[in-house]
Amino acid sequence: MKNILVGVSYKGTNYAGWQRQNNALGIQEVIENALEEITREKCEIFASGRTDAGVHALEQCFSFKTNFSPNKLPLALNSKLPDDIKILWAKEVEPNFHARYSAHKKTYIYRLKTETIQSPFDYDTTAYIPYKLDLKKMQEAAKYFIGTHNFKAFCSAGTSVPTFEREIYSLKITRENNTYTFEICGNGFLYNMVRIIVGTLVDVGRGKLKPQDIEKILISTKRENAGKTMPAKGLFLKCVEY
Amino acid sequence: MKNILVGVSYKGTNYAGWQRQNNALGIQEVIENALEEITREKCEIFASGRTDAGVHALEQCFSFKTNFSPNKLPLALNSKLPDDIKILWAKEVEPNFHARYSAHKKTYIYRLKTETIQSPFDYDTTAYIPYKLDLKKMQEAAKYFIGTHNFKAFCSAGTSVPTFEREIYSLKITRENNTYTFEICGNGFLYNMVRIIVGTLVDVGRGKLKPQDIEKILISTKRENAGKTMPAKGLFLKCVEY
Repeated sequence: MKNILVGVSYKGTNYAGWQRQNNALGIQEVIENALEEITREKCEIFASGRTDAGVHALEQCFSFKTNFSPNKLPLALNSKLPDDIKILWAKEVEPNFHARYSAHKKTYIYRLKTETIQSPFDYDTTAYIPYKLDLKKMQEAAKYFIGTHNFKAFCSAGTSVPTFEREIYSLKITRENNTYTFEICGNGFLYNMVRIIVGTLVDVGRGKLKPQDIEKILISTKRENAGKTMPAKGLFLKCVEY
Repeated sequence: MKNILVGVSYKGTNYAGWQRQNNALGIQEVIENALEEITREKCEIFASGRTDAGVHALEQCFSFKTNFSPNKLPLALNSKLPDDIKILWAKEVEPNFHARYSAHKKTYIYRLKTETIQSPFDYDTTAYIPYKLDLKKMQEAAKYFIGTHNFKAFCSAGTSVPTFEREIYSLKITRENNTYTFEICGNGFLYNMVRIIVGTLVDVGRGKLKPQDIEKILISTKRENAGKTMPAKGLFLKCVEY
């Protein structure tokens, strides 16, 4: 069997997240069912990481074993998939490659608008907050996240992992009219880490926190010192690098 | 009672068009029901024009009579409306003003992508076609639509109207990567006119028609000489001018 790596884009609004689960529809299950239909093989796919309910992907990656040709896979699979899940590409990779364990870098985007009236065209792909933000202060605060830190304060309470240490390579915040885009790249992310980082940067942008408070919050390792977890709908997995 | 003009944006995907009708949900009915709930008056609203099933509006306008304050209307109404219909503004107008009969200019946008894989994020707000288009040829063809013409060839067959004469003020086509935007402004539009004009321009872009064929098609007044009616999902009413 060949080991195949696949790029997939999805709008997470109508799914209970990536992972296959009981009593709710995960994106993994939709893709596995479509794959089994076209390959006539039992398929188990492994993503670079789970995304939560309502979180989107511009380019998520998953790997799996099959006898089916990777060249024919995108077209065949897209014909079976719903409009909100689309295969971008597929290629053969080394037998020991694994979409999760071989990943080096992940980039997420968070989209936020400071408007009181939601647009009918992006209410499920953008978070809305009703107050003005100070872009420069948020950009100053963003610098404190760069590098290797213990991110326990920026991880949902109760998460059990071997280590809370992660490295952030970049965190850029840009503004176009009333739309803010947070782009964060790192070697890995803890549970809800991006959404809590953005929530904390919003507190800086509103003046509730100072940029230099980020350092203290990191050192404290206390979740309650960081900002709120922002809504899932503004979060996109942008790409995974191997 | 005051005469109120209201700006409203909506995503048409989940509605059977603007008009109130039996056995299907029109946007008009949703807004009228919400209005009656907040004003406790019987409300009949008049749009600048109907939009078809699946067609969107960045800014549609409607007028109606009420005792309710226009200042309080957007916030109150939005709290009752679904996410895909949002009131942008409301203002008092002259007693004899009518959203339909007082309109001078309307601008529509048509969004089109020349890609084989649909994006999960715009499949219901963009038309997709699987072939390349020649932008310059389409821009050359667009010039033939400018001015006052009999647009019977660019109107769905069977339409009964006093006159097929309409004036087009501008028709701009722009491209960004694989996304084409057609922006057309005129004093009024016949049934499916924008979608048939875009379908005919696509035929020019593909090489099935020459730019100068547009003139002949206009003169022929025969629907079968023009191109296909493009799908509703790519069409947006951009604005109405009074």
